[in-house]
Amino acid sequence: MKTDIASLGEFGLIDHLTQEIKLKNRSSIKGVGDDAAVLDYTNCQTLVTTDLLLEGIHFDLTYVPLKHLGYKSAVVNFSDIYAMNGQPKQITVSLGVSKRFSVEDMEELYDGIRLACDIYGVDLVGGDTSASLTGLTISITCIGEGISGQIVYRNGAQENNLICVSGDLGAAYMGLQLLEREKTVFSQEADFSPAFEGKEYILERQLKPEARKDIIAELAKRGITPTAMMDISDGLSSELLHICKQSHTGCRIYEDRLPIDYQTASMAEEFNLNVTTVALNGGEDYELLFTVPLTQHDNVAAIEGVHIIGHITAESLGACLITRDGAEIQLKAQGWNSLEA
Amino acid sequence: MKTDIASLGEFGLIDHLTQEIKLKNRSSIKGVGDDAAVLDYTNCQTLVTTDLLLEGIHFDLTYVPLKHLGYKSAVVNFSDIYAMNGQPKQITVSLGVSKRFSVEDMEELYDGIRLACDIYGVDLVGGDTSASLTGLTISITCIGEGISGQIVYRNGAQENNLICVSGDLGAAYMGLQLLEREKTVFSQEADFSPAFEGKEYILERQLKPEARKDIIAELAKRGITPTAMMDISDGLSSELLHICKQSHTGCRIYEDRLPIDYQTASMAEEFNLNVTTVALNGGEDYELLFTVPLTQHDNVAAIEGVHIIGHITAESLGACLITRDGAEIQLKAQGWNSLEA
Repeated sequence: MKTDIASLGEFGLIDHLTQEIKLKNRSSIKGVGDDAAVLDYTNCQTLVTTDLLLEGIHFDLTYVPLKHLGYKSAVVNFSDIYAMNGQPKQITVSLGVSKRFSVEDMEELYDGIRLACDIYGVDLVGGDTSASLTGLTISITCIGEGISGQIVYRNGAQENNLICVSGDLGAAYMGLQLLEREKTVFSQEADFSPAFEGKEYILERQLKPEARKDIIAELAKRGITPTAMMDISDGLSSELLHICKQSHTGCRIYEDRLPIDYQTASMAEEFNLNVTTVALNGGEDYELLFTVPLTQHDNVAAIEGVHIIGHITAESLGACLITRDGAEIQLKAQGWNSLEA
Repeated sequence: MKTDIASLGEFGLIDHLTQEIKLKNRSSIKGVGDDAAVLDYTNCQTLVTTDLLLEGIHFDLTYVPLKHLGYKSAVVNFSDIYAMNGQPKQITVSLGVSKRFSVEDMEELYDGIRLACDIYGVDLVGGDTSASLTGLTISITCIGEGISGQIVYRNGAQENNLICVSGDLGAAYMGLQLLEREKTVFSQEADFSPAFEGKEYILERQLKPEARKDIIAELAKRGITPTAMMDISDGLSSELLHICKQSHTGCRIYEDRLPIDYQTASMAEEFNLNVTTVALNGGEDYELLFTVPLTQHDNVAAIEGVHIIGHITAESLGACLITRDGAEIQLKAQGWNSLEA
């Protein structure tokens, strides 16, 4: 059953989608339904991040279910707030929706957004919906709280700091490659069902990523405040170069220390891709990349799922990868989009 | 001279557009260049509003210069913060840009955004740019400060309150009609220059609206805190019905008190439109609609550019317009888009 969005009237869709929202956070004073949301950030500092997602550029609805898309759209914004060592608390969601979408489609998208909000303890406090001439546009702004003095920027890395990453790298990129391949095959054969068995992990990393709230909590528990931190959305190389540039440092990371899942490696082989290149430049991992003082070595090494992959050096030494056979390769900010070129 | 956006590289455009931005406000701790902006709202409450503008739906670049578009995109967000009796302090700007735009085009757009920020004392603290398959997408989020207890919602109107509007109504809508007409003529005749003389006011209202910072300042100076307030973006009727619905009241407004500029009236006549309908349902005026206690009559009546157009009644009496000849007409939430239908 598909309901035409126009049947809800000009303000109907946003009212319909937000009608059952209950605010959870103390800092959410007033949500949807006025000219602006009202928040209370009198006890901490305020973090604001925003993301614009466009159909055909950032997502492909032929293989991304709308609920997953909603979930991911919210989570990638939460990830930016965690990357400041903060806690996401509110989001606003604006949608541009073309005529091919129904009310039920938008409900599905919102279900995903709401699910992410529930799991991460975030309130949906505003936004709007509008017609669009072409496809789906999603704009999300996330507001979070940070404790003054404990907010972590990109520019605080210092010589001899350890470089750490959470989770593993390149899986989301290989998931995307797999989906793109099956999409092509699917469009050519009538009676075809995609072969996803044994590849669930890389698919989930692409379709339903999580933000590393757990790592931020663990760091706090252990009294570790990173000197610099980012989330990895455009690939490790690119993000490391941001930290080095803003911190005026260099870095050395080691190929044999890059955390790579088995499915990522086997998929890379299948695609005839160098798995190290995939780990360095594949995007959308939403893992945390951070630096800590050398004195925190044992403390940080004990965190499950955190890997020490190298260290910060003097700026003059540049940013480089030491390969398995000891060669030194300059890191480049390829960004994950350009991998395909 | 047109520079291809691709020549700046993946992060080049946003760096290029934001490189000379200096932060003005005490509450802007860290702007563009990290995972999130960092703000300090420890002395007041935080207001957040967001707007998504899509080419072909919200603007038409055949008659809207990019600089004006940037200016308007920012100002309409400021207007939402003023409508809460707050002060806008920061914005984030995300752009989706198709290949037909150049670096210079985006500079023009940003010039307009920056001009609005300078005039209204707002900092640009974040955002991103991305490719788009079709046209231009602009997503702006504005953050502002409100004093606890002085924030004005839509739901506070009470029986016998006076209904006030600033400025005049319907001009932006008639400006739009004029631009649309000249566009049509223009596309038919080769040697044609549009006839805009004597119509500068309605054109400016459409192309370069202002937010009523001055009215908010004047109300504060006079010690008036409205009981309810909104900005008029979708037309007076629609906004009044929002206030009545959320405040559980009715209202009576008077046709002969609706403030209408001479150019609006004469243009409506030319288009064979009822000027009262235009004033009630024409959108994008960005004037303030607010209610004050009856005891403030003389105080509010003395503000230049503020008009008392009626009063709040019991909910059971409904929302109605009293015409010049004394007839009572039910107000409808037509919204300005549907005027054209």
